[in-house]
Amino acid sequence: MSMKKEEVVIFGAGLVGSLLSIYMVKAGFRVTVYEKRSDPRKTNLYAGRSINLALSIRGIRALETVGLSEDLKKMVIPMKGRRMHDVEGNLTFQPYGKEGQYINSISRGGLNERLVMRAEELGVSVLFDHKCVEVDLDNTRATIQGDGQLFDIEADVMFGADGAFSAMRQSFLKQDRFSYEQYYIEHGYKELSIPPATNGDFAIAPDGLHIWPRGNFMLIALPNLDKSFTCTLFFPFEGDPSFQSIQNAQDIDQFFKKYFPDTLDLIPDLIDQYTSNPTSSLVTVRCYPWVKERCMMLGDASHAIVPFYGQGMNSGFEDCYLFDELARSHGYDWGTVLGAFQKTRKKDADAIADLALKNFVEMRDHVADERFLVQKKVEALLHELYPQEWTPQYTMVTFSHAPYSEAWNRGNLQHKVIQPFLTQDVINNPETIDHEGVINALRSVL
Amino acid sequence: MSMKKEEVVIFGAGLVGSLLSIYMVKAGFRVTVYEKRSDPRKTNLYAGRSINLALSIRGIRALETVGLSEDLKKMVIPMKGRRMHDVEGNLTFQPYGKEGQYINSISRGGLNERLVMRAEELGVSVLFDHKCVEVDLDNTRATIQGDGQLFDIEADVMFGADGAFSAMRQSFLKQDRFSYEQYYIEHGYKELSIPPATNGDFAIAPDGLHIWPRGNFMLIALPNLDKSFTCTLFFPFEGDPSFQSIQNAQDIDQFFKKYFPDTLDLIPDLIDQYTSNPTSSLVTVRCYPWVKERCMMLGDASHAIVPFYGQGMNSGFEDCYLFDELARSHGYDWGTVLGAFQKTRKKDADAIADLALKNFVEMRDHVADERFLVQKKVEALLHELYPQEWTPQYTMVTFSHAPYSEAWNRGNLQHKVIQPFLTQDVINNPETIDHEGVINALRSVL
Repeated sequence: MSMKKEEVVIFGAGLVGSLLSIYMVKAGFRVTVYEKRSDPRKTNLYAGRSINLALSIRGIRALETVGLSEDLKKMVIPMKGRRMHDVEGNLTFQPYGKEGQYINSISRGGLNERLVMRAEELGVSVLFDHKCVEVDLDNTRATIQGDGQLFDIEADVMFGADGAFSAMRQSFLKQDRFSYEQYYIEHGYKELSIPPATNGDFAIAPDGLHIWPRGNFMLIALPNLDKSFTCTLFFPFEGDPSFQSIQNAQDIDQFFKKYFPDTLDLIPDLIDQYTSNPTSSLVTVRCYPWVKERCMMLGDASHAIVPFYGQGMNSGFEDCYLFDELARSHGYDWGTVLGAFQKTRKKDADAIADLALKNFVEMRDHVADERFLVQKKVEALLHELYPQEWTPQYTMVTFSHAPYSEAWNRGNLQHKVIQPFLTQDVINNPETIDHEGVINALRSVL
Repeated sequence: MSMKKEEVVIFGAGLVGSLLSIYMVKAGFRVTVYEKRSDPRKTNLYAGRSINLALSIRGIRALETVGLSEDLKKMVIPMKGRRMHDVEGNLTFQPYGKEGQYINSISRGGLNERLVMRAEELGVSVLFDHKCVEVDLDNTRATIQGDGQLFDIEADVMFGADGAFSAMRQSFLKQDRFSYEQYYIEHGYKELSIPPATNGDFAIAPDGLHIWPRGNFMLIALPNLDKSFTCTLFFPFEGDPSFQSIQNAQDIDQFFKKYFPDTLDLIPDLIDQYTSNPTSSLVTVRCYPWVKERCMMLGDASHAIVPFYGQGMNSGFEDCYLFDELARSHGYDWGTVLGAFQKTRKKDADAIADLALKNFVEMRDHVADERFLVQKKVEALLHELYPQEWTPQYTMVTFSHAPYSEAWNRGNLQHKVIQPFLTQDVINNPETIDHEGVINALRSVL
């Protein structure tokens, strides 16, 4: 009997592809990853202040499972809540969860490099500058362009972890009955950098995610290990004000003076940065099926989301964790596992897509709203009093492993139940909430 | 000053493309249509019993405007209501509207040929076997494959009327911020033919659209000029029963005996037909924008819908009518017109897509439901009593030129308003409806 190892091919050496390759090599497969971009370690692509992401426990569990806990500790900056800046520059703080619950700012580039290194240490073959041209989904074959030539490969199973503009998905799009949606919101984003202060320290408090909520748009900032911050302006493409309406140095200056006056001292080269940094769009991708024969998409390739819940990377890492758990329980029988995974995971991918779209409105607008802040306080109190029965939606998404669809349904139900109890008295004194009344109302609709 | 005529290029010589070409040539442009399929008049593609469509007044108005009324009269078979078949073979009749209101069965192939002939008579150049490979949307240029070679064309304006799998849309998909959705329902369809009776006449009444509603699936039949009927089985791909569960002659026979016993005598070669005719899928396509510079998509290319409201062709023809009306009012200033058209029309395209999806449930299930039938009767009565204030949704869609979005909103509102009035007494005696109460309830929410 042949002892030849099964061949696993993964398209994409980004965050999800490289993590999946580690799971697969640990499970005993021969793993090859094809990545169309160049090796970031050689091209210095991620050098300097790279963009950062919010890592929370779904992502952390997935990374810990493959032995990366120690590395992580050195890579993250904990953020325990939102630090909100009003137009006068006044600051308020809103914790994300209970004492000890926080999300973590982490460099995308740094984490990605660490994952690729770990994959290679374990024997994964990662081929950069190798582009997937086409996948023959029915026969688990693909055409690759690399080293100046086209060549065909085959494998026992192929994964498309190749992001929001997935090449494998192009092959799915040629199949009959492939449902697909790409939805662009009306806002785009632009990154700006806050350098360290002259004394070498962080220029603003690094223990939170800074938000300048301005109704229809917002600026946010996350800390980096080098004591800089990466800011992102989320802003409509059209309208007034918008990326379109801001055309020259004077417009930029006036706009920031009016809406973000306390950032002017923080970003000394604002006009240069604003002018030279690109403006990017924001897309949600939904599709189904994710599987054809022995080919499967995961991560952004099958469910790209907007960044407003900080769950894009976390949901992709959770894909890897849950997929491997399921695959293990079925002895890596691909004929069963791929179909079973898409069936259980699709509703959660849809739910986090909806949650992320909804959280944009929350971040840019509601966080500045008194009623919303009171509801947050009341829900924290309910969670303290009835930890088994009431968990705020944000906590379910960010600090639990509950399926996203459960967080969506339960959170929306709680939101509905609590509204009649948020009277003017409660707005004035949140602690006077009729918590028994609320919990009974919830019980009665469950 | 040059008197050179402006060049209009249209991709697709289907129903919408050929009608649009007539509007454009009548407006004084030089018009070329590129069609990837072969000329149906040469290949006999549509010979014999072709599939038929339901033409209603939105489509009729568009055709009459370009002088096709006389031709139409010879091509249509009026259908004044639904003829419902229950499992025992009992028939009931449900009119579509008032006396004199009907929809028309028409052959797709016959109408398409007539439109192409009329276009050519007026000087449109229709090039069959010419496939659009790529459109350079920014420069109104395209690459065409035809006569065994690739060549480039340019024009002052280009229209993509090239259907649900539009080639022009592929070029839109390469643009940033193009929102796009293709959604396949769980059902597919298979066509079957009922030949004329032995006496040469229609085998069943030709004055209605026949429906065999069976809950999760249905069979329908529309009459043809040659006294045959074309039936369509709308059926789930998977589940029990489904296309998947019916595997052999015995399954087909048992299935039709159980659910459509009165069709067994009507379709003598049922097993042959079922086995050899293809099973096709059903897709809804939504996208935006429809316009880039001087390129625009219309018809199925920008808004393909499921067939259950009989509005696919009608909405495409209405696109042509409304577009030409708007263009004329702006002196065919493309820089203004294309953008203005997509802006007003998008919401109506979305509405008819939703209406069509909703009507599937109505046709396959609700038409067999007593409460639904009573509501239909009551609404007809309200329409008679308050013709300015109450128009059933079906009537707004099928027998009016009201924007689809208005039909959607108003119809859904009316549905909500009427529910509390549909008491058991009214179910038993529809004419006892408190019509003043209903109309006052509607007024109060408007």
